[in-house]
Amino acid sequence: MSDVQQPAEQEISDQRLLKGARARATIARHAAEVASVEGLTGLSLGRLAGDLGVSKSGVATLFGTKENLQLAAVQSARELFIEHVVRPALSQPRGMPRLTALLDHWFDYLAEPCLPGGCFRGASVPEFDSRPGPVRDALAADRADWFAVLEKEIGRAQEQGYATGHDPHALAFQFEALMAAANLATRMGDETALGTARTIIDGLTGAKS
Amino acid sequence: MSDVQQPAEQEISDQRLLKGARARATIARHAAEVASVEGLTGLSLGRLAGDLGVSKSGVATLFGTKENLQLAAVQSARELFIEHVVRPALSQPRGMPRLTALLDHWFDYLAEPCLPGGCFRGASVPEFDSRPGPVRDALAADRADWFAVLEKEIGRAQEQGYATGHDPHALAFQFEALMAAANLATRMGDETALGTARTIIDGLTGAKS
Repeated sequence: MSDVQQPAEQEISDQRLLKGARARATIARHAAEVASVEGLTGLSLGRLAGDLGVSKSGVATLFGTKENLQLAAVQSARELFIEHVVRPALSQPRGMPRLTALLDHWFDYLAEPCLPGGCFRGASVPEFDSRPGPVRDALAADRADWFAVLEKEIGRAQEQGYATGHDPHALAFQFEALMAAANLATRMGDETALGTARTIIDGLTGAKS
Repeated sequence: MSDVQQPAEQEISDQRLLKGARARATIARHAAEVASVEGLTGLSLGRLAGDLGVSKSGVATLFGTKENLQLAAVQSARELFIEHVVRPALSQPRGMPRLTALLDHWFDYLAEPCLPGGCFRGASVPEFDSRPGPVRDALAADRADWFAVLEKEIGRAQEQGYATGHDPHALAFQFEALMAAANLATRMGDETALGTARTIIDGLTGAKS
């Protein structure tokens, strides 16, 4: 009889796990949405439970602490960015075509953000930059990964004769600075900011000289 | 007898007003300090009262609401920035000398910030950019004033033959973007960021061509 029951029990357990993982992903995504507008500080287990119509104890079982919820929001936003900006660019050839695709998708991502508060990194890094701990560490790791992607592709583009005469890190620093400023200015009501940033960045990546 | 009493009463009243104004300024400055690290959202009348060893009801009498406290923090941080960055530059001749002085004092302000969390604008604008209301309005007005100062001095420097070939607004946008990014990266532990920003900005303001 145990032979018959075990697969059934296993199946129920798998389904529960799957359901738990789906619930966790749904809550983490909503946490990222809320944090993009109100900041990671504004997150609370009770608030999210209320928004999603689930019990606070259920959310607490899945995440435990507010910090774990903040970390899950960071991870969820990171996956959104990879999905919408990084992954689509990987189908382009390395170097200038891929760098151009990364910048294009990045601009699209700021122009029509997936999260209601716009760029998650732009909102949460300034919020946690002076607060050491696991959330700041997660944001720093995500930021370092993104800089590494940019710098690698800038280096390859330079080997192809584009954007020469700039240190790859300094160029990535400028891209990130201009995009963060464009996101911020757009959120503050300046409708010309993305265009301003685009013109400057196109000047920096300039065609072969 | 009323002739004798009135000046004395007036004096007491003046002293109370002065004491109230001083207390208000002290609390507002501390609010700016706390907000620079933990965000304006993290401010509370009770927290500030506890930090400063005064009664919560006293703080409540002076500020009324959390929003008024947030607005007072924005104003206090604005005064700090004017005092340390804008005012010292006004002693320099208009145009390139004054623009250089503004940039120098701005870099000093980020390298050795008056507030424990670094640049207040860099922390609070991203926090409130998606939250319409009086706090966002105050931050937007402060930001617009600062852009106006920069653009005016860039325009004058260009008349003197410096930093030509750039739209003054686009150049101010780049300065603000690079400074915000340098502040952020510095707070995240990157000790090279201010140097990177300085090199790029010096390239942009370039000497007479």
